Amino acid sequence: MPHIALADGVPGILGPMFFRPETAKPLNDLAEVLLRGDNTLTRGERELIAAHVSKLNNCHFCHTSHATFAALQLDDGWDVVDAVVADPATAPVSDKMKALLGIASKVQSGGLNVTDADVAAARAEGATDVEIHDTVLIAAAFCMFNRYVDGLGTWAPADREDYAETGKMIVEMGYAASSPPIPAA
Amino acid sequence: MPHIALADGVPGILGPMFFRPETAKPLNDLAEVLLRGDNTLTRGERELIAAHVSKLNNCHFCHTSHATFAALQLDDGWDVVDAVVADPATAPVSDKMKALLGIASKVQSGGLNVTDADVAAARAEGATDVEIHDTVLIAAAFCMFNRYVDGLGTWAPADREDYAETGKMIVEMGYAASSPPIPAA
Repeated sequence: MPHIALADGVPGILGPMFFRPETAKPLNDLAEVLLRGDNTLTRGERELIAAHVSKLNNCHFCHTSHATFAALQLDDGWDVVDAVVADPATAPVSDKMKALLGIASKVQSGGLNVTDADVAAARAEGATDVEIHDTVLIAAAFCMFNRYVDGLGTWAPADREDYAETGKMIVEMGYAASSPPIPAA
Repeated sequence: MPHIALADGVPGILGPMFFRPETAKPLNDLAEVLLRGDNTLTRGERELIAAHVSKLNNCHFCHTSHATFAALQLDDGWDVVDAVVADPATAPVSDKMKALLGIASKVQSGGLNVTDADVAAARAEGATDVEIHDTVLIAAAFCMFNRYVDGLGTWAPADREDYAETGKMIVEMGYAASSPPIPAA
């Protein structure tokens, strides 16, 4: 049971977003620019960071959602996603992505844990300042989304197959398009 | 030294916000609706939750900023803020606020840590579903803001006096007004 009165059968973050459209809008706008806006990191790579951090936070809904969105937008799909979840250091991603996933792990454990050496390692693999910035903010944002979803005790479908339909919608339409309307005051 | 090339002498979150105005806008829009929008929790009470969570995350910039914003908007100013930082359970705030600060602490440690009993305790003190929702999201959002500020190694002024001027500006103008302009593509 969710901790507050959310609509029945609405999965994960969608329940609180329909409950409070005023906050849903900036949350979806943030996800849109971070995960889908113009960027030298692909959409699949950015969703991979989101899925990785959500796994570290044990957020089943966010992890399975963003793992699905990553798989749909990466050439090698679930093979890459599953390998990153198992161990980013040995996953078939670029050395730059390995370093950025390392920074994301540090951010998840606490912002002060990111060291000059972590950032130098990413830069040595060609990461730009914008890519480092966006990695830190994606990881930080999922420390919010994960706590929002689980802190309200929302319901989440069990299997990755249950996320396929939403996945196709997000890949086609994006996050901003899924904000519920804000009622007139 | 910040981990990426931010403007010199710009404190805390303002550095990354000027660096990346595209993400600054939804971040400020979120802070505006959560901390200053219409609510049965006062602006001072909501800033108190933000300051409390930022303290738990050891984020000096966010803590001192939002402690200042809380002090400026609460009748008993710094006395209440200092008491909450020392121990919410004995601070001179309402029993409802004590329960909500308890939920915020749980969210900070991980969303799955919020229990039915935590929520029932807040509801027994008169907390509404919207107040519980907003408390969870404020706490979650500061787990993001804190990691963003510290994960990029931003610079922060040392003393609370250094935050007084920004405090007056935020209280008067709000967060959304401080978003830097987004350059044309």
